[in-house]
Amino acid sequence: MRYFIEVSYKGTHYHGWQRQPNGITVQEELERALGILLRAPVEIIGSSRTDAGVHAEQQFAHFDSEIPIASPERVTLGLNSLLPKDIAVPQIIPVRADVHSRFAATHRCYEYRIIFQKNSFLSELAHIFRPELDIQKMNEAAGLLLQYTDFECFSKIHTDVKTFLCTIEHAYWQKTRNGLTFYIKANRFLRGMVRAIVGTLLEVGQGKKTYADFEQLIMSKNRKNAAAQAPACGLFLVEVGYEWESIVL
Amino acid sequence: MRYFIEVSYKGTHYHGWQRQPNGITVQEELERALGILLRAPVEIIGSSRTDAGVHAEQQFAHFDSEIPIASPERVTLGLNSLLPKDIAVPQIIPVRADVHSRFAATHRCYEYRIIFQKNSFLSELAHIFRPELDIQKMNEAAGLLLQYTDFECFSKIHTDVKTFLCTIEHAYWQKTRNGLTFYIKANRFLRGMVRAIVGTLLEVGQGKKTYADFEQLIMSKNRKNAAAQAPACGLFLVEVGYEWESIVL
Repeated sequence: MRYFIEVSYKGTHYHGWQRQPNGITVQEELERALGILLRAPVEIIGSSRTDAGVHAEQQFAHFDSEIPIASPERVTLGLNSLLPKDIAVPQIIPVRADVHSRFAATHRCYEYRIIFQKNSFLSELAHIFRPELDIQKMNEAAGLLLQYTDFECFSKIHTDVKTFLCTIEHAYWQKTRNGLTFYIKANRFLRGMVRAIVGTLLEVGQGKKTYADFEQLIMSKNRKNAAAQAPACGLFLVEVGYEWESIVL
Repeated sequence: MRYFIEVSYKGTHYHGWQRQPNGITVQEELERALGILLRAPVEIIGSSRTDAGVHAEQQFAHFDSEIPIASPERVTLGLNSLLPKDIAVPQIIPVRADVHSRFAATHRCYEYRIIFQKNSFLSELAHIFRPELDIQKMNEAAGLLLQYTDFECFSKIHTDVKTFLCTIEHAYWQKTRNGLTFYIKANRFLRGMVRAIVGTLLEVGQGKKTYADFEQLIMSKNRKNAAAQAPACGLFLVEVGYEWESIVL
């Protein structure tokens, strides 16, 4: 039996989603807690491998259980009490046996949150950025992202992907109560892509790069032309989309 | 020269506002940082002595400096870099020498935030409460708070106040995205008052106490008749009011 698990986490204290030898990860915490409840080792495959320090308001993953889960609600409650306070599981959903959380996802939405001043409640949940920014210029350049599909220039160099093609549905900045937030939606994202885009758009907003520079960067397909990536603390995976009617059991 | 200092803090890791021997407090952190910047020992008097674990979106305090502060903006920036990440200072304001941050305050607003489910981002910033609540009954009982002025029944027993009189301007619950929030505004509050009110209203919401019980409790002036206080993590001091035009220099 295959199940989808919806997860949200504050990424501050994790070395990202994916299990690795050097630090505690979200995948590992979930596998440990689920293994206790199901009394069997479990492997959980996530839809998106968020980096160290990146947050998720909504992430999905799938796992298989030899014994069907009689009450997903009860396992959800059990998981939430076993998991640390910065990882929560809103629901577990039985799905068709061939559905893969990563390949079946139709889109992902990310947000990058900037605040202009220190905030005692948001120190781990936003990037403090003090220089003045021209939001109109940033949005003009962001609009270019919808006109291209090859984003090798924003991808980490050591990556195992076969193509750098992504279809971006929207990409724009909006003012918030105490800063700016960048909203981006695409069918898929490359490793480090959102933070590299944000880092480069922040240079456009400061006048260090122009609209033309931004377009040339995309066409160059060369990561070296992009700016340094923005810090992880500002990035949130906020939505992963599926055609639910075709995957839920 | 007297100054007001606006402060916000996430109270999770502090033993409350007021300096004390048993643990780190917000007052102590502020006095230490300000002492470094002003190169002299400083005593900071807060408008409200929040308890251990209680948060403040807005708190005010006053202090005196023998040497006038040439640039309050620069001292504010310095404070924010010296202070821990969960304490922020939005501004420092020169005021008249006889203005006391506690006695000059015209009102305080508190919020008590409840969520119904575990939330990975709000674990330290709300109280998780699962039983079903009747918000209408809670608001009917909360309305009684506006008809009385003596709230000895909601005050901690060991307290040095001279009267238990408070004028409550509003007190009501509202639904939020994932829970309920209690909003209360008064000229002053007694020690532990908001958490005792919330704890008792949660019993009303569960049907354990009636409207009549709540009124009798207020009239009894006896803390023993109130419910246990709600946990500190849900409580926020959100506003302290002054007649600014009569106190600012």
